[in-house]
Amino acid sequence: MNNRDNFNKEITVSGFVESLRDLPYVQFIVIRNGTERLQITIEKENEKMQVLIPIVSSLTLESTIKVTGILLENPKVKLNGMELIPSQIEVTSVSFPELPINIKSKDNTLRETRLDYRFLDLRRDDNHLLFKCQTTLLAVMREYWVNNGFIEINSPKISSASAESGAEVFKLDYFGKPACLSQSPQFYKQMAMAAGFNKVFEIGPAFRAENSHTSYHSAEIQMIDAEIAWIDSVEDVMDMEENWLRYAFSKLKEKHGEEVKKVFGIEISDASNPFPRITLEECKKIIKEKYHYVSERKDDLERKEEELICKYVKEKYNSDFVFITKWPFDARPFYQMKDSEGYSMSYDLLYKGLEITTGAQREHRHDILKSQIIEKGLDSKDFEFYLDFFKYGCPPHGGFGFGLARLMMQIFEIDNIREATYIYRGPTRLNP
Amino acid sequence: MNNRDNFNKEITVSGFVESLRDLPYVQFIVIRNGTERLQITIEKENEKMQVLIPIVSSLTLESTIKVTGILLENPKVKLNGMELIPSQIEVTSVSFPELPINIKSKDNTLRETRLDYRFLDLRRDDNHLLFKCQTTLLAVMREYWVNNGFIEINSPKISSASAESGAEVFKLDYFGKPACLSQSPQFYKQMAMAAGFNKVFEIGPAFRAENSHTSYHSAEIQMIDAEIAWIDSVEDVMDMEENWLRYAFSKLKEKHGEEVKKVFGIEISDASNPFPRITLEECKKIIKEKYHYVSERKDDLERKEEELICKYVKEKYNSDFVFITKWPFDARPFYQMKDSEGYSMSYDLLYKGLEITTGAQREHRHDILKSQIIEKGLDSKDFEFYLDFFKYGCPPHGGFGFGLARLMMQIFEIDNIREATYIYRGPTRLNP
Repeated sequence: MNNRDNFNKEITVSGFVESLRDLPYVQFIVIRNGTERLQITIEKENEKMQVLIPIVSSLTLESTIKVTGILLENPKVKLNGMELIPSQIEVTSVSFPELPINIKSKDNTLRETRLDYRFLDLRRDDNHLLFKCQTTLLAVMREYWVNNGFIEINSPKISSASAESGAEVFKLDYFGKPACLSQSPQFYKQMAMAAGFNKVFEIGPAFRAENSHTSYHSAEIQMIDAEIAWIDSVEDVMDMEENWLRYAFSKLKEKHGEEVKKVFGIEISDASNPFPRITLEECKKIIKEKYHYVSERKDDLERKEEELICKYVKEKYNSDFVFITKWPFDARPFYQMKDSEGYSMSYDLLYKGLEITTGAQREHRHDILKSQIIEKGLDSKDFEFYLDFFKYGCPPHGGFGFGLARLMMQIFEIDNIREATYIYRGPTRLNP
Repeated sequence: MNNRDNFNKEITVSGFVESLRDLPYVQFIVIRNGTERLQITIEKENEKMQVLIPIVSSLTLESTIKVTGILLENPKVKLNGMELIPSQIEVTSVSFPELPINIKSKDNTLRETRLDYRFLDLRRDDNHLLFKCQTTLLAVMREYWVNNGFIEINSPKISSASAESGAEVFKLDYFGKPACLSQSPQFYKQMAMAAGFNKVFEIGPAFRAENSHTSYHSAEIQMIDAEIAWIDSVEDVMDMEENWLRYAFSKLKEKHGEEVKKVFGIEISDASNPFPRITLEECKKIIKEKYHYVSERKDDLERKEEELICKYVKEKYNSDFVFITKWPFDARPFYQMKDSEGYSMSYDLLYKGLEITTGAQREHRHDILKSQIIEKGLDSKDFEFYLDFFKYGCPPHGGFGFGLARLMMQIFEIDNIREATYIYRGPTRLNP
């Protein structure tokens, strides 16, 4: 639109009317297309423009127009040093005169009102940049996997109710049978391992009926999942995730780093240093010795501990990422593999003070898996279709999953998941 | 695994036990990893192998093993002219001895039984290739869009019940409120247009509670959706879809064409010729004149007519694709734009005799959109959140959507959608 190659040429451009000034001798319009802007100048004394003056006079902000005219260089124009001298203006849509939110600044409207009018909230440049970055991030994540021979799967989101029970599940009637919405593609990506698909990934929705109102929970999330076969240990899973994130962050930074610094005032993480791998026990010890903090929880990390260990790792290893390994099996799901000391062969990946991933080697041996279901006090009959996957040979395998919006929050240092999601869903929000 | 560069070197390989032969002087195992295979030869008279013999004797088909040994060239071995002479065999998982389906050929087991054991059904080479091709197809489709400045969106799959009512909707309780599963991202990709995102795409699930048992319906589908702003007419939407499919098909053919020909016996479509654009009226006229067939339906095409017009277009224009344009507005949804003659500015794209896409320019003007809702006998109150998108300026826009599995069926000439979906969902199938 504001391409200097078009100086002195006739061009046709379209955009939202971002600003309007009607002065005695001249009218100025600034139109916005994506995040580009252009000034249109209508000189009232110019005879050819007489027909345009009433059109401009009746315009409302945020209406859309299509303008044909000559693009001129004009160093006096603050906006890009250029202006369009129009010969035609077509109003393609008319905005109601009063906007329900302030679309120039997020600070002048309550968040909940902005979310009611998310389509207007998203018109801000920072939101355009955020979702451009998300597009790039998803593209380079998939690119890494596709280049490395992964198969993309689309697992079903409606499942039989038996395996995913509990209060945190959305239930529905499925042609007369009880069913529920999938909380994670866990079982179905493991099915791909039993199918002999050596490496798979999936990016798709997952649903949590959690009555949670925190700044980092959501009832509907985008899950990013991967699973790989023929592994020797959970270290192989961490290696894969680390290499993949390193690739994704370097590409994201290369493409958008400068603009993100300008708009968000933050530096996209450099993921080139190795991500330290620290056992949960060591982690608790470090936090105690270094920060004199002891948590009540022995089998998990509090938010405060996540922040402290990330602070330590950033100072000592200059990494925004840290893997916490060797978790008590009691605190982890039945399908994770146990090591010889009884620990779950799993990890959490923390990034800038928040857990973003859980990964693990899975138990792939039918008999042991069944006994772990029983050990957890679950009914193996509820997991029959899942146990079947392991009856006819299944490679040793492992993988990880995490939520896209939490990653976006942490990368861009956004304080609320509602601002990092295209359309947020929570206990009190089902609209738009 | 069967890389000739490794001749005379020690390697470690893993795989499923695909075949076993226990002869008086020798044991042969063939292992399968993905779609690669390798013979392992255990000579019973070799003293170093004594420890391996009982391991091999107790193996069951489809168990998984990890083998270390020397890879030797041996022209007498039919499989790749090589064999692995093992020094170590580790059994990593044990298969039950009786498999519930025949995994070598799909014709020896009923489809429904194969679907019950989809994880075994997917072990066949043709299915591995199918999902590798799908992975490539999705990757190059997204690549085209990302390279052309599209933003990827993830629209919510749980929506308020008012806008998506009717029998074909899955209903659920959402924290005490009535809600339903999204049948299409239509409204939410249009929201992106109102947000000033100029071009967007989404690939994600959509849900249809249709009690339909045909070979090309499914209760849960992967929808491929795109929407673009600032268009002049529906022709712009067809141009975009045509260029995008041309890119995708050429990349798919380039990467997998040869192997697909070998495994499926079919040629991937060449999409390089222009896709003809024929009005519905012309289409009916051609079918009548050329094939002497007249359908009862004036406002839509029967399956038979779809097949006939595709036959005609293939013969006359050497294209597997054809756009059918200018549909009666009565037969199309309220949100499509009407032209001056009262036709909907929409199209269907037919491919090899089946409709795969519906696309259209949308009505973006608030007042006209509202009147079209009323004209269709709908209650505009049910669409308030959607109508809001058009109150504060919205660019002229259009787009299209289609189902991934139908496209896969048509490309690979698979006769049933159940075979073209990772895990199928239908009225009588909720498992696995």
